[in-house]
Amino acid sequence: MSDVRVIIQRDSEREEHVVTTGTTAAELFPGQRTVVAARVGGELRDLAYELKDGEVVEPVEISSEDGLNILRHSTAHVMAQAVQELHPEAKLGIGPPVKDGFYYDFDVEKPFTPEDLKAIEKKMQEIQKRGQRFSRRVVTDEAAREELADEPYKLELIGIKGSASSDDGADVEVGGGELTIYDNLDAKTGDLCWKDLCRGPHLPTTRFIPAFKLMRNAAAYWRGSEKNPMLQRIYGTAWPTKDELKAHLEFLEEAAKRDHRKLGNELDLFSFPDEIGPGLAVFHPKGGVIRRAMEDYSRRRHEEEGYEFVYSPHATKGKLFEKSGHLDWYADGMYPPMQLDDGVDYYLKPMNCPMHNLIFDARGRSYRELPLRLFEFGTVYRYEKSGVVHGLTRSRGFTQDDAHIYCTKEQMAEELDRTLTFVLNLLRDYGLTDFYLELSTKDPEKFVGSDEIWEEATETLRQVAEKQGLPLVPDPGGAAFYGPKISVQCKDAIGRTWQMSTVQLDFNLPERFDLEYTGPDGTKQRPVMIHRALFGSIERFFAVLLEHYAGAFPVWLAPVQAVGIPIGDTHIPYLQEFAAKARKQGLRVDVDASSDRMQKKIRNQQKQKVPFMIIAGDEDMANGAVSFRYRDGSQENGIPVDEAIAKIAKAVEDRVQV
Amino acid sequence: MSDVRVIIQRDSEREEHVVTTGTTAAELFPGQRTVVAARVGGELRDLAYELKDGEVVEPVEISSEDGLNILRHSTAHVMAQAVQELHPEAKLGIGPPVKDGFYYDFDVEKPFTPEDLKAIEKKMQEIQKRGQRFSRRVVTDEAAREELADEPYKLELIGIKGSASSDDGADVEVGGGELTIYDNLDAKTGDLCWKDLCRGPHLPTTRFIPAFKLMRNAAAYWRGSEKNPMLQRIYGTAWPTKDELKAHLEFLEEAAKRDHRKLGNELDLFSFPDEIGPGLAVFHPKGGVIRRAMEDYSRRRHEEEGYEFVYSPHATKGKLFEKSGHLDWYADGMYPPMQLDDGVDYYLKPMNCPMHNLIFDARGRSYRELPLRLFEFGTVYRYEKSGVVHGLTRSRGFTQDDAHIYCTKEQMAEELDRTLTFVLNLLRDYGLTDFYLELSTKDPEKFVGSDEIWEEATETLRQVAEKQGLPLVPDPGGAAFYGPKISVQCKDAIGRTWQMSTVQLDFNLPERFDLEYTGPDGTKQRPVMIHRALFGSIERFFAVLLEHYAGAFPVWLAPVQAVGIPIGDTHIPYLQEFAAKARKQGLRVDVDASSDRMQKKIRNQQKQKVPFMIIAGDEDMANGAVSFRYRDGSQENGIPVDEAIAKIAKAVEDRVQV
Repeated sequence: MSDVRVIIQRDSEREEHVVTTGTTAAELFPGQRTVVAARVGGELRDLAYELKDGEVVEPVEISSEDGLNILRHSTAHVMAQAVQELHPEAKLGIGPPVKDGFYYDFDVEKPFTPEDLKAIEKKMQEIQKRGQRFSRRVVTDEAAREELADEPYKLELIGIKGSASSDDGADVEVGGGELTIYDNLDAKTGDLCWKDLCRGPHLPTTRFIPAFKLMRNAAAYWRGSEKNPMLQRIYGTAWPTKDELKAHLEFLEEAAKRDHRKLGNELDLFSFPDEIGPGLAVFHPKGGVIRRAMEDYSRRRHEEEGYEFVYSPHATKGKLFEKSGHLDWYADGMYPPMQLDDGVDYYLKPMNCPMHNLIFDARGRSYRELPLRLFEFGTVYRYEKSGVVHGLTRSRGFTQDDAHIYCTKEQMAEELDRTLTFVLNLLRDYGLTDFYLELSTKDPEKFVGSDEIWEEATETLRQVAEKQGLPLVPDPGGAAFYGPKISVQCKDAIGRTWQMSTVQLDFNLPERFDLEYTGPDGTKQRPVMIHRALFGSIERFFAVLLEHYAGAFPVWLAPVQAVGIPIGDTHIPYLQEFAAKARKQGLRVDVDASSDRMQKKIRNQQKQKVPFMIIAGDEDMANGAVSFRYRDGSQENGIPVDEAIAKIAKAVEDRVQV
Repeated sequence: MSDVRVIIQRDSEREEHVVTTGTTAAELFPGQRTVVAARVGGELRDLAYELKDGEVVEPVEISSEDGLNILRHSTAHVMAQAVQELHPEAKLGIGPPVKDGFYYDFDVEKPFTPEDLKAIEKKMQEIQKRGQRFSRRVVTDEAAREELADEPYKLELIGIKGSASSDDGADVEVGGGELTIYDNLDAKTGDLCWKDLCRGPHLPTTRFIPAFKLMRNAAAYWRGSEKNPMLQRIYGTAWPTKDELKAHLEFLEEAAKRDHRKLGNELDLFSFPDEIGPGLAVFHPKGGVIRRAMEDYSRRRHEEEGYEFVYSPHATKGKLFEKSGHLDWYADGMYPPMQLDDGVDYYLKPMNCPMHNLIFDARGRSYRELPLRLFEFGTVYRYEKSGVVHGLTRSRGFTQDDAHIYCTKEQMAEELDRTLTFVLNLLRDYGLTDFYLELSTKDPEKFVGSDEIWEEATETLRQVAEKQGLPLVPDPGGAAFYGPKISVQCKDAIGRTWQMSTVQLDFNLPERFDLEYTGPDGTKQRPVMIHRALFGSIERFFAVLLEHYAGAFPVWLAPVQAVGIPIGDTHIPYLQEFAAKARKQGLRVDVDASSDRMQKKIRNQQKQKVPFMIIAGDEDMANGAVSFRYRDGSQENGIPVDEAIAKIAKAVEDRVQV
């Protein structure tokens, strides 16, 4: 028995240990229950891994990204074992960790019922308590085939081992290299309880699973292809602590309540009629009001900032996208062509930039006109598979608040600075405040333009980003081939991150369109081109705000800003007069003159999330006043009519949520 | 020689005459040089026609529609004779009258030059003076073939006589019935000077042509088909008096100056880039400003009028247009389909109505919500042959200011009244004032809905139209199959009539979409649907206004409302301060800070048709004042800055043209 020297590394600290042959990684971290695996020489290993001389060992904490994946992967095994204990005829598909949880696919006769899920969850708790050991075993293909003769999907995976990389995570299960089986062994007897073909690693025992829950089941094709059998997939979630599980479930509940598709229906804002097709929304009148308020404000701010408004068509000859190059590198994202005029292909535009370039190029330009900032609310159409279309956040047609800035190289730094400041301030005006920035830089394998301009542009972007005092996350190699980019990432009210605005340099299109301006010395110069969208897509931003505010929009965006609620029918005309007066000042004020009783009206308007309820009875009428009732149920009485209207107008002006 | 009784009819007056056998129609109207033909028993005849017993004869005045056609047709013959006298090798195509003039097609070796046209016009004047007689002669097909053996195109027309009806007027030349040749005979000798296969009738002699002019020449395929030989077409115009000819030529000159395509380029408003394709415009920043001002005002007025704004996509599954029926009766006007999702046809929308119906139908509707007025600036795409596309007035993609009103049958009359009044007042706000209305009523062969509803609706439309006190022109049988319609016809500054707004009832779509609302008694009712567009197409209305104002828009629509012109460079900052102050009040004010000299700046801004030029020099600066220079060259000096800004703001507010 000789000595083995290993190095324990935590962050940047390294510590040498001398241990005996046969020592496992687990023994390096005694009593540290939150260490669930080890990264040895860069590879993830079980804690049962036997250390070799000279190896560098990093502990994997359960809360780290790797740790969470291992936790969830092991929980998926426990679920599969539970399913096969309860449904011995179930054949195993695959069961990888996914964001916040895991799933496992099963070939069963009929879909799992909610009762089935409850029973499976109960059985999993039992297995968790048993403290079964996860034990790794290397096998030959032949041996594996023999052992797993009853599992046809696993046999298929053995066949494609090494080459397979299914979207559904088949690579997680098998991967390249050695073929391994994980045995679940009884804590006391060491007897085999269950096994699975799996690359691992796994938790030491099922007792290391602190908290989990099964979420839902769904149908899924084996390996994602419609040509394969349909399996039944169960989704679950698992967390390092019970508190984290609880927080996650609460988050999901909150997110479901805020789901823009649900709110869009409840508040009568928009819909996706079946006759039109997936991903193509119609906006109903109330949604139209919000959208227009969003657009109008954006437009006003853009005008103040010196943007000029243009219009371009939604369809064009393919010639334009040949010139721009989109048909070479973006054709998959475009709708198929329409043939007009004996064989000319026309396309819906997926982007507005080529059209703006034609406007720039419609006549000679002088340096005196720069920066030229062309803005359009341009509706674009992009092909998305119907399976990935999701409400307004991922659709097949949407309107970009799209601008292209043409400037001289000398103006670039100031223009980028000004653009980013403008973008962030405008997002703040809509009530988003929690940002970080991401800087996508050159992919050295794929770029156009000189190293010098990339360097200068990237450095400029970095400086203007840093000046904002916001966290700046590097995204090395993440830039598109045509230029570096800053993107604004934004957290919403329940902590989700949305990519919002982008400020993107483009060294490609000015070349392809041969864009020029005449410099002060009379020579032709190539302008710098900046793409920037603030909302990205108005529809998507609409959805983000809808979810951020859970439908309770700030007053300036609310489709109905105040609604009059009469105590009795005799107070209706008084409130209608109030509403008419308020509407003259541009406020959106209605009166609930329905036959509902007052309390019902209040409940209805609360559901509609109307910011102000304006109540009036005899006393109010006598005093020329009204009473305010707020969404939280509090009330303020006897406010003179003019003061009341001014109060609503002030709330609009200040863009507050009440 | 026996007596022949004929009746002369003028308007509703009938007068019996007894003449001798062999008397011609001409002899009934002695000395009446403006009578150029006669309508005998409903048929147009030469004045040389010999009257038969019992015939009713109406004189045809040269200024009547028939008279003008005959004048222009005879002038076409004179032109053809002139061409063949000068170019004996020229083969004849056809030569019909058209709006305001005539043309004739010739097969010649090379296109006519401007000098050729001058020579031809001179020769025509000669022929006019000769006073040749137009003489009708009936021939057999065989004889005609022999006589016209040298005219291959005429031979082709003999072959297709009776069945042919070419777009280019071949029917005018030959037509059904007897085959006739018109001989041009020398006034004195009666010798044959020229002849043409022609149905007639014609003027008595070439001396009856009071005024004509050749306009231009162009290439044209024989009988309009690309498969046929290319001929050379000469266009001319002819009028009953020299004054009318002069007025027409002046009108054409004025119309050419106002051509929106020309002004659009000169004022940098829009363009039709070749990369995008015919009929699909991009709006440049200045055009964008005008268009937005047009839209914004329309939107504000629509909001005040109780319209609700919706949005719908430009593309949809074909399913929607199956439901609406458009794929049955409007497919030719639509772009071809795009296939998505393994074989589902998607189409660009040619109309917004089906989408608005889906919004109406997105949830249950109560009578309390009616009238529901859904409005959209909806861009539609319609297929037009590239040959008929014309600037912004006939394009392949345009934005309708489109609204659909859903109301109860009881509300119909008031709603139509209100809509028509609104429409007319809004057009007046844009500066159009000269209207008449057209009422299109049921085609008894083709309509849906009951006779009762048609009668009620038509009567209602008539009443609301009459109430406007505008001329009302009936268009019997001109309604679409789905309902009667009022259209607003509008004369522009140079007297051209444009069809603007339409108010159209629809008894078809509510059925096809099974639209319903719940009545006060709880039963389901079918709403009445009204389509109405005010501009029709924003782009087309833009073009109409551009031509109406010849580019000199009223201040509220002008892209630049005022421009500062410094007397010297030292006055630039003062004017920039003035401009900034004015912009804060929402005015569009620039300063011409270019290196041009002052007089050049004034000329440039006059060409750009900027309403106000604001000039400042030392004295103005010392007094805190500016000077106004108007488009007509007049000037107003020493106006204090605030007063000057108020003056511009007032001109915007009052929507005046200065």
